[in-house]
Amino acid sequence: MKPLNQLTAGEIVAAIAAQKTTAEAVARACLDHIATREPQVEAWQFLDPDLVLKQARALDAGGTVGPLHGVPVAIKDIIDTADMPTEYGTPIHKGHRPRIDAAVVALTRRAGGIIMGKTVTTEFANRHPGKTRHPRDPSRTPGGSSSGSAAAVGDQMVPLAVGTQTTGSTIRPAAFCGCVGYRPTWGDIRCHGVMEAAGSVDTVGLIARSVEDIALYRDVLLGVAPTPLAATIMQAPRIGFCRTPFWGQCEPYTQQALEACATKLAQAGATVTEVTLPDEFGRIDDAHRWVSSFEFARNRAWEINHHYEMISETLRNNRLKDGLACSFEQYREARSYLARCRRLLHDVFNNCDVLLTPSAAGEAPVGLNATGNANHSLIWTSTHVPCMTLPLFSGPNGLPVGAQLIAARNNDRLLFEAARWVWANLK
Amino acid sequence: MKPLNQLTAGEIVAAIAAQKTTAEAVARACLDHIATREPQVEAWQFLDPDLVLKQARALDAGGTVGPLHGVPVAIKDIIDTADMPTEYGTPIHKGHRPRIDAAVVALTRRAGGIIMGKTVTTEFANRHPGKTRHPRDPSRTPGGSSSGSAAAVGDQMVPLAVGTQTTGSTIRPAAFCGCVGYRPTWGDIRCHGVMEAAGSVDTVGLIARSVEDIALYRDVLLGVAPTPLAATIMQAPRIGFCRTPFWGQCEPYTQQALEACATKLAQAGATVTEVTLPDEFGRIDDAHRWVSSFEFARNRAWEINHHYEMISETLRNNRLKDGLACSFEQYREARSYLARCRRLLHDVFNNCDVLLTPSAAGEAPVGLNATGNANHSLIWTSTHVPCMTLPLFSGPNGLPVGAQLIAARNNDRLLFEAARWVWANLK
Repeated sequence: MKPLNQLTAGEIVAAIAAQKTTAEAVARACLDHIATREPQVEAWQFLDPDLVLKQARALDAGGTVGPLHGVPVAIKDIIDTADMPTEYGTPIHKGHRPRIDAAVVALTRRAGGIIMGKTVTTEFANRHPGKTRHPRDPSRTPGGSSSGSAAAVGDQMVPLAVGTQTTGSTIRPAAFCGCVGYRPTWGDIRCHGVMEAAGSVDTVGLIARSVEDIALYRDVLLGVAPTPLAATIMQAPRIGFCRTPFWGQCEPYTQQALEACATKLAQAGATVTEVTLPDEFGRIDDAHRWVSSFEFARNRAWEINHHYEMISETLRNNRLKDGLACSFEQYREARSYLARCRRLLHDVFNNCDVLLTPSAAGEAPVGLNATGNANHSLIWTSTHVPCMTLPLFSGPNGLPVGAQLIAARNNDRLLFEAARWVWANLK
Repeated sequence: MKPLNQLTAGEIVAAIAAQKTTAEAVARACLDHIATREPQVEAWQFLDPDLVLKQARALDAGGTVGPLHGVPVAIKDIIDTADMPTEYGTPIHKGHRPRIDAAVVALTRRAGGIIMGKTVTTEFANRHPGKTRHPRDPSRTPGGSSSGSAAAVGDQMVPLAVGTQTTGSTIRPAAFCGCVGYRPTWGDIRCHGVMEAAGSVDTVGLIARSVEDIALYRDVLLGVAPTPLAATIMQAPRIGFCRTPFWGQCEPYTQQALEACATKLAQAGATVTEVTLPDEFGRIDDAHRWVSSFEFARNRAWEINHHYEMISETLRNNRLKDGLACSFEQYREARSYLARCRRLLHDVFNNCDVLLTPSAAGEAPVGLNATGNANHSLIWTSTHVPCMTLPLFSGPNGLPVGAQLIAARNNDRLLFEAARWVWANLK
């Protein structure tokens, strides 16, 4: 067996059920690995080994609790936990302890998951970075805003993590850190107890090491009994290769990797077509910026009223400035435009099951003052469709580069099946 | 001048600006009225006169703060306040004090509003009633779930209140208590810090004594500089008289009042047409129930995990039971159906500016164990359109009966203008 901290969620559940290990042994393996690696990675905002072991022992003492029995899960620190602080990436909320668990945390516990701790977020899940460094190169960003969640999974500290995405905050760090990242169809998973950045586009996001783990954890967070993915991998899917208006912002090696991937998938039997988004998508980045900034600035009303001086310059001079400058009419126009883009994108899927597109510009960039270009996600975030990044390539420095797959709204399960096919045929 | 506690928000702001009164005098007038009436009405979950007067004195000591300068506002107790408890209508959260103000509370304070206290909500803004009684007849419900907010405005305790609406939780109590009630276009006003019941249909709702106050307060909560309504009332609007599939659930006197109203408005110059909703709307009540119950049950995951025995039988055996029994596929189908209804309703407004329809079945019913039939709101709640109830009629017991006006999505300002025309031509 692999070291316990390297198991997937599915492997942990199976190993405990077969009495090959215990929840406590798994938790200890993860804690030991974290103890070694945390000084370099700094993925955790809060981690209390005693609290982790207490949860694990309670699980070992009882019967099987649920489909995540004994699986350690990391929670982004903009998501409320009743037994741990939640600080939203800002000194304004230092030491805050919420009254209740967010819905996603409560559903995780109900399924037998172990809440390992809180992972570092950028300030209010926006741009100003936290302390986390890329697990493979401490001079590089792990991506943001779900920085600690992606670094923790990428570094084998935990098999599963919850993040959020308002622009590219799950897909991009997951791609940088070599993980599977998933953003669900907007509206599927409840955000009660998750700090709202911009409700019109916010979702939680999941980070794992396998597509199967993502499918399992999604069902847990939907509050339904898990349905495993099909025993056999699907027939070759119809894939639309979509360069998007942001293709020119990709590194040449990312472009080449994706083009070679499309060719290889066609050779493996997929129907691969070139998909060009309608011209109307030309101003989707502006529209996303107005909608998310307008909402973000209203959501931070308390902090602006009482602690404006403790907000970073980055946040004040970008997102807040944009949001406060945006009129309601401009906001509403942008919101309606995004709704039109949603309808237009729906038709794109008439001829393909999934789109293949970049997850990010390339490898995680050097420098800890920024978290990388999020444009490669904003089209999909704005249009409410499910997205998944797979760690399929590596760049010139040997660091991970992701491929992103997109399905039509509500087709999350088809996305998972197609992702398995792509992964199986590219290895 | 009227007694200070009977002034509208606009009148209070003007009187303070003209130095005819002070924020403290207004607050004291409201507190004195509350002291007399609260033993009968029980609108308040939390009220600290010292905290109110402290806010008022701070406003009087400084310059004019904003467009709600000195206006007392009641906040439904599912909306977070940093300086007052927030208990969500359940003993589970007794004494809970949130860390921050909800966005709507922070925006109210920024505009110079005085947070008067927290008003009674049904349990988790669902059906199980709180202690509040109808201001005009203590044997009757004030409606729910924004029970205290509507009773407080209806009883002249405050000029403005914030509620929420997931089915009919603002429009119905406002109608019962003789207030102007408004539910905005879904998505316009941020719900950060408002307990989520069912995010797909939740909005905040506003309760006031005039259409002008609603327009003013809406702009404050949108976080924009207020634009007054037009100085002159609009030309006669095109009105669609819409009986809805729930017409048969209205009291005969409500049907007669609305029919007479439609006739009178036509005589006053409005173009009044009969509007029949498309047949597809036939199962909108079921779809609303599945969507709201599915989401509600996930949002209460923490309370179900830890305090199931403290949840009312009413909630366990209805909303939670439905929500936990609903599969994800059934939920998603219902959600897609509601999206289709939204598109169908949009076309209804090709030939009219607003719809005229019942606010509730009739007068507030006798009995304090239930809050009345919410069906007359659920079509509009589910379709995300703005709604307003006006206190235009009275029933056989002399209690208020409302008329509800509905506009197309994003046409909130047109709704206000039409409401002013209707009110002016019916008096």
